[in-house]
Amino acid sequence: MSEFFVSRWVPRPGHVQEDDRGGLPRGFRAAGVSAHVKPSGAKDLGLLVADAPETVSAARFTRSGVLAAPVIVSREHADVSRLRAVVANSGNANAATGRQGVDDALATQAAAAQVAGVEQIATAVASTGVIGVPLPLDRLLAGLEEVRGELRTDGDRDFAEAIRTTDKSAKRASLVVELPSGDVRLTAQCKGAGMIQPNFATMLCFVQTDAQLEQETAELLLGVTVKRSFDRISVDGQLSTNDTVVLMASGTSGVKVEPLSEDELRLGEALDALLRQLALMIVADGEGSKRTGRVVVSGEDPAVLEHVARAVANSPLVKTALHGGDPNWGRIAQAVGGALLDSSPLHFDIAIEGVTVFADGSALRFDEAALNAAVQRDEVEYVVALPGEGAETEVFFSDLSHEYVTINAEYTT
Amino acid sequence: MSEFFVSRWVPRPGHVQEDDRGGLPRGFRAAGVSAHVKPSGAKDLGLLVADAPETVSAARFTRSGVLAAPVIVSREHADVSRLRAVVANSGNANAATGRQGVDDALATQAAAAQVAGVEQIATAVASTGVIGVPLPLDRLLAGLEEVRGELRTDGDRDFAEAIRTTDKSAKRASLVVELPSGDVRLTAQCKGAGMIQPNFATMLCFVQTDAQLEQETAELLLGVTVKRSFDRISVDGQLSTNDTVVLMASGTSGVKVEPLSEDELRLGEALDALLRQLALMIVADGEGSKRTGRVVVSGEDPAVLEHVARAVANSPLVKTALHGGDPNWGRIAQAVGGALLDSSPLHFDIAIEGVTVFADGSALRFDEAALNAAVQRDEVEYVVALPGEGAETEVFFSDLSHEYVTINAEYTT
Repeated sequence: MSEFFVSRWVPRPGHVQEDDRGGLPRGFRAAGVSAHVKPSGAKDLGLLVADAPETVSAARFTRSGVLAAPVIVSREHADVSRLRAVVANSGNANAATGRQGVDDALATQAAAAQVAGVEQIATAVASTGVIGVPLPLDRLLAGLEEVRGELRTDGDRDFAEAIRTTDKSAKRASLVVELPSGDVRLTAQCKGAGMIQPNFATMLCFVQTDAQLEQETAELLLGVTVKRSFDRISVDGQLSTNDTVVLMASGTSGVKVEPLSEDELRLGEALDALLRQLALMIVADGEGSKRTGRVVVSGEDPAVLEHVARAVANSPLVKTALHGGDPNWGRIAQAVGGALLDSSPLHFDIAIEGVTVFADGSALRFDEAALNAAVQRDEVEYVVALPGEGAETEVFFSDLSHEYVTINAEYTT
Repeated sequence: MSEFFVSRWVPRPGHVQEDDRGGLPRGFRAAGVSAHVKPSGAKDLGLLVADAPETVSAARFTRSGVLAAPVIVSREHADVSRLRAVVANSGNANAATGRQGVDDALATQAAAAQVAGVEQIATAVASTGVIGVPLPLDRLLAGLEEVRGELRTDGDRDFAEAIRTTDKSAKRASLVVELPSGDVRLTAQCKGAGMIQPNFATMLCFVQTDAQLEQETAELLLGVTVKRSFDRISVDGQLSTNDTVVLMASGTSGVKVEPLSEDELRLGEALDALLRQLALMIVADGEGSKRTGRVVVSGEDPAVLEHVARAVANSPLVKTALHGGDPNWGRIAQAVGGALLDSSPLHFDIAIEGVTVFADGSALRFDEAALNAAVQRDEVEYVVALPGEGAETEVFFSDLSHEYVTINAEYTT
């Protein structure tokens, strides 16, 4: 019984096992402390260090027009192909903080590099929390001094704790991947609950492996798997100023993953399953979420499918129906119609949990009791078949709950 | 003290007075009864009749790709330039009901025309309510027989009641408009609370006047004023399958409104104020809404401004902050950034209630207590100034509340 791969939409690959030992792959240490950025005194500052000098890395960032200072610093003042350290804080996004914010992020980067014993240019910075409030730099710098004595090979738990905001639980995984050339380890720490949408979610995710990769391989694997995971989820249709994903490979397993090899394919499958399950954990942890939906849209034009899938996934009427365990497919039809203006008469089918409920403009008869029961489960699947063939997309989304309103109506005041 | 023009964003034009007498302009009768479409037994079937044979009309409909049967019938089986009757029901949208739905709408149209004593082609049909459920035609036809004895010149109250769904109150107005050529009357009945968004709201609105108009004038005035009212609001970003607006002019006042005349201008101003205030009543009645927001976006490219304004108005993070009376401008910045991908560094200003809080990438100092108090009022204004000049747009939007979730999570089950 898998404890990590809990979604029916992400089966555990046969060559991937959960690692009961926990802790980071060889070559990594981490820590998480309270720097008192969060008023609660919970952990809010983490540092992750790769001690192996051959570490290669790759990163992805938000595409928002409003980039947080740490994203600017990581993109412009770090070499993301050879990162050796990541410093991350919660409680303050250091976004919309202007020149001072960038200076603060640079100072954090310099201090973290010094504590980690690596070059400043090899250090990424990430923040999450409230927007528009100056970073309490003194507290972060003091916290980093505390981190110095806390870095441990099993520090991933504390690190994952330190990057949480409204997450109900820390999101972590520790996997062993059997490759043809030998076993490697794959771990990740992730956060994200609110403000989650395309390109990709408002989230931070840090992935480590002791596989030996070329930088191009790290870049390729991360690029493809982020597109299939964090790019395919939506909690509330909102794009963050701070999204950051970093993959680091220390090479300390001695297992070399050559480009275009079976090793690369297998490692890619493992990373894909890891990121998809983490993405689904974010959706399931959508602020106040009770149920996760998956909408699959098929048809001809990928751009149209993307537009329709997002319209369904972000429809508050669809999301409240999902929350209420209500098989109200009329709202799916409304969302599809609203996304495709002036397209009437539009022919498409809707299936919920495998039951076609709407075809060619009309409701079909179906077993209402069975469908009512099916939409009460934790995961509900909707399929929208538009005319034409050859393309398909999916979006995973959370429901919309009272708790979402409570959390977000009272976030700063 | 005006009772109808309650929003600060819609001042009452000096030549427009509220009409204490109420009732419809000369040449119109209406009624509203219970046809038992709604399980509650509340009124759910209305008929509006123009007895004057010279009546001219104009109409606007939803642009959804999924058109409800009554919209198909009104567009394809009625002449919207010379409507003499409108039959409208609540409790059932007759949408996504296929060929049977169209047949039912046609049968309703025929029966309503017979009761109204007008041609079938001069009769529009409108429905609102749950999607995907067959129309209970027998009950509607029986209800129309009951309507026959109820048509009265002051039947607009009952008619307005009969088109309500989740509206907290009936939306009506009865105005006297002083034109250079003489006084005319202008009345309207409107519904809309949920599923409200662009092009235009999920709503029904029926407008009557005893002014004497050419058909082209009716078409022009309705087209322009709908664009400035129902097209500029959003409750939840959802486009309905059923939106319908009908303007009918009976000509019975004897006041002739010539094209390009001062009369036309003045009548247009009155209609504009009427529809804008009705649109704001819909927003204020957004399911569970407590506060109304107005976002004004200025800049260079109208398409970009429209995209940004909608992104802000439909952001659940902005809407929950509005609900919470929270001056969290960071969420405005986030919504703007999320709407304009890959545009960093993006320079823009944000003002809330006239106070500039963010300029050129940074927060500004401002009187927090004063702003906190300002955003607790019923109407809150946000201004986003993008680079460039020459274009401006606005969107009115509701907040996002617990009640919205309650209403929509429990709508059908």
